[in-house]
Order: sequence, then structure tokens, then C-alpha cells
Amino acid sequence: MRKIILDCDPGHDDAVAILLAAGNPYIELLGLTTIGGNHTIDKVTHNARQVLTIAGALDVPVYRGASRPLINDVVTAEDIHGDSGMEVHGYNLPEPAVGVEDGHAVRWIVDTLMREEPGTVTLVPTGPLTNIALAVRMEPRIVSRVREVVLMGGAYGTGNITASAEFNTFVDPEAAAIVFGEDWPVVMVGLDLTHQALATPEVESRFAALGTSAGDFVVALVDAFRHNYKDAQDFDNPPVHDPCAVAYVIDPSLVETVPAPLSVELAGTLTRGRTVADFRASDAPCNSSVATRLDVERFWDLVVDAVQRLG
Amino acid sequence: MRKIILDCDPGHDDAVAILLAAGNPYIELLGLTTIGGNHTIDKVTHNARQVLTIAGALDVPVYRGASRPLINDVVTAEDIHGDSGMEVHGYNLPEPAVGVEDGHAVRWIVDTLMREEPGTVTLVPTGPLTNIALAVRMEPRIVSRVREVVLMGGAYGTGNITASAEFNTFVDPEAAAIVFGEDWPVVMVGLDLTHQALATPEVESRFAALGTSAGDFVVALVDAFRHNYKDAQDFDNPPVHDPCAVAYVIDPSLVETVPAPLSVELAGTLTRGRTVADFRASDAPCNSSVATRLDVERFWDLVVDAVQRLG
Amino acid sequence: MRKIILDCDPGHDDAVAILLAAGNPYIELLGLTTIGGNHTIDKVTHNARQVLTIAGALDVPVYRGASRPLINDVVTAEDIHGDSGMEVHGYNLPEPAVGVEDGHAVRWIVDTLMREEPGTVTLVPTGPLTNIALAVRMEPRIVSRVREVVLMGGAYGTGNITASAEFNTFVDPEAAAIVFGEDWPVVMVGLDLTHQALATPEVESRFAALGTSAGDFVVALVDAFRHNYKDAQDFDNPPVHDPCAVAYVIDPSLVETVPAPLSVELAGTLTRGRTVADFRASDAPCNSSVATRLDVERFWDLVVDAVQRLG
Amino acid sequence: MRKIILDCDPGHDDAVAILLAAGNPYIELLGLTTIGGNHTIDKVTHNARQVLTIAGALDVPVYRGASRPLINDVVTAEDIHGDSGMEVHGYNLPEPAVGVEDGHAVRWIVDTLMREEPGTVTLVPTGPLTNIALAVRMEPRIVSRVREVVLMGGAYGTGNITASAEFNTFVDPEAAAIVFGEDWPVVMVGLDLTHQALATPEVESRFAALGTSAGDFVVALVDAFRHNYKDAQDFDNPPVHDPCAVAYVIDPSLVETVPAPLSVELAGTLTRGRTVADFRASDAPCNSSVATRLDVERFWDLVVDAVQRLG
Repeated sequence: MRKIILDCDPGHDDAVAILLAAGNPYIELLGLTTIGGNHTIDKVTHNARQVLTIAGALDVPVYRGASRPLINDVVTAEDIHGDSGMEVHGYNLPEPAVGVEDGHAVRWIVDTLMREEPGTVTLVPTGPLTNIALAVRMEPRIVSRVREVVLMGGAYGTGNITASAEFNTFVDPEAAAIVFGEDWPVVMVGLDLTHQALATPEVESRFAALGTSAGDFVVALVDAFRHNYKDAQDFDNPPVHDPCAVAYVIDPSLVETVPAPLSVELAGTLTRGRTVADFRASDAPCNSSVATRLDVERFWDLVVDAVQRLG
Repeated sequence: MRKIILDCDPGHDDAVAILLAAGNPYIELLGLTTIGGNHTIDKVTHNARQVLTIAGALDVPVYRGASRPLINDVVTAEDIHGDSGMEVHGYNLPEPAVGVEDGHAVRWIVDTLMREEPGTVTLVPTGPLTNIALAVRMEPRIVSRVREVVLMGGAYGTGNITASAEFNTFVDPEAAAIVFGEDWPVVMVGLDLTHQALATPEVESRFAALGTSAGDFVVALVDAFRHNYKDAQDFDNPPVHDPCAVAYVIDPSLVETVPAPLSVELAGTLTRGRTVADFRASDAPCNSSVATRLDVERFWDLVVDAVQRLG
Repeated sequence: MRKIILDCDPGHDDAVAILLAAGNPYIELLGLTTIGGNHTIDKVTHNARQVLTIAGALDVPVYRGASRPLINDVVTAEDIHGDSGMEVHGYNLPEPAVGVEDGHAVRWIVDTLMREEPGTVTLVPTGPLTNIALAVRMEPRIVSRVREVVLMGGAYGTGNITASAEFNTFVDPEAAAIVFGEDWPVVMVGLDLTHQALATPEVESRFAALGTSAGDFVVALVDAFRHNYKDAQDFDNPPVHDPCAVAYVIDPSLVETVPAPLSVELAGTLTRGRTVADFRASDAPCNSSVATRLDVERFWDLVVDAVQRLG
Repeated sequence: MRKIILDCDPGHDDAVAILLAAGNPYIELLGLTTIGGNHTIDKVTHNARQVLTIAGALDVPVYRGASRPLINDVVTAEDIHGDSGMEVHGYNLPEPAVGVEDGHAVRWIVDTLMREEPGTVTLVPTGPLTNIALAVRMEPRIVSRVREVVLMGGAYGTGNITASAEFNTFVDPEAAAIVFGEDWPVVMVGLDLTHQALATPEVESRFAALGTSAGDFVVALVDAFRHNYKDAQDFDNPPVHDPCAVAYVIDPSLVETVPAPLSVELAGTLTRGRTVADFRASDAPCNSSVATRLDVERFWDLVVDAVQRLG
């Protein structure tokens, strides 16, 4: 069993990440924290509660986090995620049967990490890194208590929101710099990896074949996501980013990684928010690695299996 | 009566600011929060407790805040404040009779502002602005609840730690950008003003003449401060920065201010941490102002009076 | 006698600078080079020829220089200088009786400096510094051959085109960085000084009283300049920047200067193009100084005298 | 026949590029211009003359160019190219039998491009881009007269001198920004391509087998280069960068290229000098392309053939 805190901004692919975390038996989802990103904090928190409701994960506590990046103005991604932040085609989203806990996500993250056994909790951020950055600046001792930070974000190749930067690290580069700069193990599951996790029609049909509510929900997500990704970035099949980070936690053998020092450009005119991975030969030890190759087949097996378990 | 939270990093001039806040009858000092800056968070917290002990202000709660800036590495100012962060000449500093409260300064700032009547509490930061920045990113609603932010920091003329930047805004420029960027009233009491608050021998002799412990403490502070400021920046008399901000809260007529939009340069190679004040003609309303001229005589009267009251 | 090369972008105040250089008996105007800035290179070159024609300085060679800054896109100042770059009210500008020499301004500057006696030629740039920067990068030996660079540009106080930067250094910051970075004597005659050189109605009436063509031309320039400066920057009387640099060459006692290291911010988001003057105490020798105070009375005497001599 | 101007800073791989240009019958080498980079302008100019002497190309004019970058301080690469900038093992370098022409390289580049038939001359810069940048800022009309700019420099993957930047674009980023920003066809032959052009022992033995002076020279270059590249960057076989650009001019089918907008980061703290290639889907036309794949076998055939012809 692996305890995780999923810090997310659903979002289509975040929704799939939640389903994977909720359905996979190896994951103990301590709680779900939300962060403004794909859409406003209000909408993503609402969406998170809907996804947990669909998953039947009614006992996972939800904490509302930061509504904006540290320095940047708010950026959202309606072009990709639609007006609600989680637009679906042909599925009736339920009223949330899950509430929102009192207290800020950052306080809860700090308190949880200080309470749980050191080395047992993995942070899985799949949105902008503002909550995690605030937590570590509020309580530096969490660094040594976290097992690992496995995040969806960044790119060592081409970005998406700019030629240099991926959306999450672009939205809050200072937060990303804080997270990459701390001395905990970090695995960057960036675009280089997630652009391999394409929801093809074949993949989609596997979810349709489940004949379950959660399966139909994934189909509805992918339908909308495919349409928006085609319009915005000319992808034939949409990359389903966020579950890749959860999948790595469940089974690291699904993802090839390469150790590399990682840092974030804050000052560049063209490159602000870029994650700089240093692949040059070096003997220096390094606490971070980047994901390079996905075992696509087994990845989808894992997701389909988890969704199937949710019924 | 004016309720204030003094967020500081004592420091010689912070010590005088604490004495002024503790001794002046118009100020209700809700609490004192500490921040790494002039020295490490451990040392400045210890120093704060010593100053409150000297002041006999044993019921003012002390909360420990951030140990480091948001992005920058830690910078401290031993050249000015000595090895302990509050080096004195010829005075035996007491063991602190004041403890440190549980809980992080930022949580306490947020909770206090959310609990107190809106518009009644003034924030008086005299160190790097990390705590205040974290507080407002954790809880944006404090912006409308604060009466005013009166801060020591910045400069529109020449800086001190660089040609462009003053120490506090240089140490944590991102935090300064966050604080100057929020929609609350901000008064910048910067070097342009505080370099007028020089502790001349005449001023010093007024504290000596009090014949009190607090008076002797000020003399001991100024002696050490004069020596260090002469060595480091070639001042004959040291500028006593931080009490200027408290003095403005007590009696704004001591300080001439000019409204001007304020922002902080984050990306400059030469100017990182500079507070940019826009003095060009404009009709746009503006929630910030900069201090330009100090009524030096009345300022020292106020400080001497407060120290005298402390006995 | 002082040999100068006037590198300018007329422009109203450039026009007055040309008249001063042409009329003052102490100045030997070796040539006039043009640079895109207040308006396009085509228009400012045309304007320069017209001004020389009005001045009767038909033997001063004109060389056309760079049409654009090193890195920035072209910025021009139509709001201040009008559609033609030298809009006048109530004066018929003549057809130029002066041609444009073959060859690029930069080549001519280099060749002239390498031909003339070392230490005899003063460079007087009153526009963006592109030509001078190109010249020194083409031929580094000119550094030791120039007597002095006396330039109109920069500000250590508030800027004009931004809160931080003056127009000329903002338009081509890289060129300014190159010029300030070389080891020749540089005098920065910036806004701090030139905003003292206001063309009041009293000043204007002195030119009107001359009853000469050049005098009438100055009146027509000032009329238009006053109108535009009021609209754009809310000045009651326009600052006549560029002749201040020429005046300093003629009689340095007109201008108080303070030695200070000077550099130019290239990377700032808010401060790009700012001239950073370091006024902090230092024993290091320094080859640059900034102009701080103008003897306004004697300045205008000098300009009126020169214009009178032109007839 | 293709007319080229080779703008270089020999340098081991520049030396091979000169041999290729001199020996290949399809290339008409109009002249060779030098630029400070791998070593000082004095040393690289001396080295260029030695290489032409070895090649027997005594009628190729050599022009000395810029001694330093536009903004940056001088950076050289002794770790890679040794004390002389072209250290060799076991070969006696001849005294140059080729002189240096009068006049600056930039003037000659401009004059040559304005004199030759438009569209006939290809610029092949293999060092920092200072000369080319100065030329185009001196005479913008050269843009439409150049056939193509085929340059060795940049990287869209990992850099060498920093994690983000390749040596040539790092040394003078402003010059690179100028060259990439102009509206001429640019082919970027960067590290992504040149790290495929490894001088293996097998390759080296082909040059040894020639039994000629030029062949022995290449062997001596590669021996030294291998040793230095192993020490500095842990390559078993050194990448021979610069002839790849010449090879592309001779036979573009040797190099796969992909069209992509290219720009250069000037302001980044981590990424200054990085060439940003935008590979995201776009319909906009684009005048630049990046080299991605080398036909290694045919590349070395071309170089061996050219060296053989030199005798």
C-alpha cells in the first residue's frame, strides 16, 4: 500500500488520475487537495467532488487550496478543459455527495505529513505547485518526512503553453522552483512522457466496454478532451497526462526515468516556467529524475483495471 | 489606540521599533512575529524575546515565522548587526522571560486578522516580507480586513545592499512583489526616509540621560550600530530604520508621503529587489504611498518618550 | 575650440542642440550623424539637414546611421515630436541645402576618430546609442582616442517612457550598456538635469526678440514642443534636453556633476533600459559622472547667444 | 558551385570545416572572416592562416573580425581547444603563408554581399555570431541579398556550456538573437546534429590512410580534440561540429531538417543563450529550420574526399 496526497485541478486528465488513485488497490488516498489551474479554485474543487462521487470514494477528504499562483496572474485553460473545467460529452455529472473540509489545503498537508510516519506519504501534484510550495515554506521539516514527490508537470523537450514551458510549471514558476529546489526525491512526469499516453479510439473502447458508470464517465471525458485538444493543439488523440504520475507511484516499472538535476527558469523572456533538466555527464549525486518512456500498453491496463474496480 | 502586528527580525533598529511599540500608549501590540533576515530565524526570535523582556512587555505573544525567503537563498546582515544579530556594547542582555507560542507566525497572522474587527489591525513589517506574503497567499480575504500595511523596506533613490535595492526587499523580492501587489493600503517607509533618522551623539545622549535600563539598552544598541555602519557603509551616525514605520502608525504627521504606484523588479540583473515608484504624472487612483520626509526632531521625541515610559 | 561629433535624431530638442553647436564659436562641429529614435532614420536625417540649412551650416557633413536598435524593435516618439519628428508651429521649414554623405555613419565615426589627434574629439550622442555602440564594437581602439562621451540620456531618478527608464536608453538598452561599459570618460546628462532646462514663456520670448530666422525657428519648435509635452506628460513648459549635453561641452561649469559608476539594466521586466547610478560611498575610481544641477540662467544665455550668431 | 563566406574561430572543428570548404570542388570560398570565440581574435586569426596554408588555399583572403561579443565579457574554450586555440598532437604547424587583409571583417562582409549577385552568397558562421550581427545592423539590405545563413550553433536539446545553451550562442546571445531574428533563410546546425558527427578511431584511420599532409593534420587535430573532449565533457569520441554546416551547404541531403521558428533567450538566469525552437503544430510560414539527423557515413565520405583533394 502506498499513501498519497493527490493535489490536483480537475480537469479531464486529473479526473482520470483520481479514478486511478481511487480504484487501484495499492493506493491509499489520504486526501485530495485542490489548486487553481485548469480552472478557478471554485470550479476545480467542485469538479473534484463530482469525480469522487462518481468513484464512490465518499470518505476521501477534500481540502481547498490556493486560488492563485504566488506571483503570476491567474491563467486557466478553458480551451482544453471547457467552461466548467471538466466539460464532458454525453454524461450527466452527479451532484457532489462529498463535501469540502474546513481548513486550508496547505495546513492539512503540513499537519498530515507531520503526523504520519516519516517516509510513508508520497505527494502527487498534478496541477500548479502552489500548495506544495506554500506547505514547504510554512514548514520546512516536511521535506524529510515526504517519501517522494511524483509530479505531473514540466518538459525537457518542447512545451505546450509556450515553446519552452509546460502549463503547470508556466502557471506558477516560482512554486515549481521551490518544489524542485528542495532536497526531497522528485520525479518529474512531464510532457515528454505524458504525450505518449494518448487516448486512442482503441483505448476509449476499452472503457466503453466496461459498461459501468465510471467507464462511461471516462469515455465522456475523452470525447470532450479529444475534441478540445484537436482544436487547440492539433492532436488526433488527447494525451492523458495526470494518471501517468499516479501510475508511476503504483508501478515504477511502467515508466523509464533518467536522473537529472532539475531547475526552473524564472527570469526568461521566452523561457519563463521552463524546467531545465541537465543531461550532461556528471558524477554529482542528484535527487531528481525525469520520466522519458511509458509502457503504454501496461499503463492503460492499469487504468482500465482501476476504473473497472470502481464499478 | 491602534492595534498592530509587528513582523520583525531584530536587529538593532528592530529592537528600537519594539521598544517604541511597547512603550507608546497609542499602540496595542497584538503580537510580534519573527522572520529570518538580519540574522537566522533562531537568533532573531531569541533577540525579540530579549527585547520584550527588557521592555517588560511579557504578555506580548511571540510567533516564529519563516526561516527563509520564498525563492532566494538566505541572506543575513552580520556586517551590520554582528554575530548575534543584535550585538550591543556595554549592556548585559537578559535571559528571555518571554516564550515562543506554538504554531507558525503565518497561521497566527491569518487567524488574528480573520478574528479581529475588519479595518482595525495594521501590519508593520520591518524585515523581509515573507510572512506577510505567505499569509495573503494562504488566505486572500485578509486583504480587505487589514487597516493598512506600513512597512520598512525599499527605496526609490539609491539602495543599500545594491545600488538599486534596499536590504529587506532584496532578501525576498518575490514576497515584496506579493505584498506591494495586493489591493490594501501600503505605506513604504524606505531608505529615502529612514536615512534621515540618524542616531547622532545628541540623540544618543537623550537616551543615556534617562538613566533607565531601556535607555541604557538603546545607548548600547546605538554604540554598536554606529561602529558597524561606519565600517560597512561609511555612515558617521547610523540610520535607525525600523521605528520610523511604527512612528508613522502612531502619528502620520511625522512623515511626509507621496502617493505613487509601487512595484518590485524580480527579473533584473542589476535591479532585482528594487522597488519601482512611479512618480510620473497620472490621474489613476493608487493605494500606495512612499515616505519622503521625516520630522526628525519630533520623531526622536516620540521614541525617547516611549523608552522613558518603559522605565 | 572643441571638436565634436553630434550623433542625434532631430527631434525638437536635437534641433536646438544642433543650433547651439553650429552657432557657438567654441565648438568645431566635425559632422553630424543620425540615428533612428525620435522618428525613423529617414525622417530624422531629413530633419537634420533642414536644421543645418536654417543654421547656414552648409559645410557640416551629414552621415546616416543605424535605422534600428540592436535588439529592441523600433520605438519612436510621435506623441512628443509629431508626425514628421520635428513638427513646428508657424514656421516654413526650408528644403535641405545640405546633402547626405556616402558611407555609413559608423564607418565615418570610426575613420574620423582614428584620423584625428587622440584626445581631441568629443562624442555628443543625443539619441539612442546604437551608432556609438556599433562603432566601438567595430573598432575598440576608438575608446582611447575619444576625449569624452557627453551624452543626453538616462536618469537616476524617475524615467519618462517608463517609471524606470529614459527614452534614449530604453530604446536601445544594449547599445547604452555597451557605451557605459567602455573605459572612456562618460558624462551622463540625463532627465535629472534636463528637466531643469524648461523652455518657459520668458525663455521663448528671448528667441522671439532676436528677430532672426533661427530665432523664429526656435520659437516655432518650442510652441509645438510645449503643446505636445503638455498632452503627453503634463509639463507646463517643455524640457529641452539635448542642448544641455552640448552646453556641458562648451562650459562644464554650467552643470554640476557627481562621479558615480553607471550601468544599464538589460534584463528587468520593469526596469529594462534603466541607468543604474551607484551613489553609495566607495573609494574605487570611476570614469563616469552624472549631471545633477543646471545653471539655468547661464544655460539659456549660451543658447540664445549661439542662435543669435546664426542670424 | 556555391559561394560562401566562412566566419569562424579555429578551433579544431573549424579547421576541419576550412579544409572541407577548401577541398570540396562545389564550394567557392570567397573569404574567411575570424571572430573571437574558441580563443582570442589574435589566436584564431593566426590559426585560420595556418589552416589555409596547410590547405594550400593561399588566395583565400582572411579578414579579422570582432574581438569580443556585443554585451557579454569574452568567454573562450581553452578546455576544449587548448592554449593556442588549436592544439595538435604530433604535427608541426607551418608558419602562415597567408596574410591578413586590411579592413574589418564586417566591412568586407557588407561590401561583398552588396557587390555579389543577390541570392548567390551563403553565410556559414561557425563561431559566435558577432560579425554577422554587426554586418546586418550596419547594412540591413544584406538580408535580402544573402542566399542563406547556415550556421553551427545552438541546440534544441541539451546544451554544452550550460544545460540550456550551446557555446556559440551562449558566448554572444545578443548577436545570435539578431541573426535568428532577421528575415533571411536560416538553417541551425546545432548540437542535436553535430553530436552525431563523432570522430571515431575508424574515421580517424581513414584520414591517416591518406598519407598526406592535410590528412595527417586532421589526425593530429582529432587526437588532441579527443583527449580534451574526454576530459571536459566525457565524450569517448569528439563531435566535429563545424564541418557539418559546410557539408549541409554542399549537399543538403546529408542532413535532415525540420522547419521551426527559432529565437534566443537573452534574459534567463538559467537559459541565457538558449536557442528556443518551437516545434508545436502551426500553420504559420517560417524561414528557419533546425538540423535533426546526419547521414554520418556520407558526411565522413565528403570530408575525407575533400581532405584527399588537398593533398
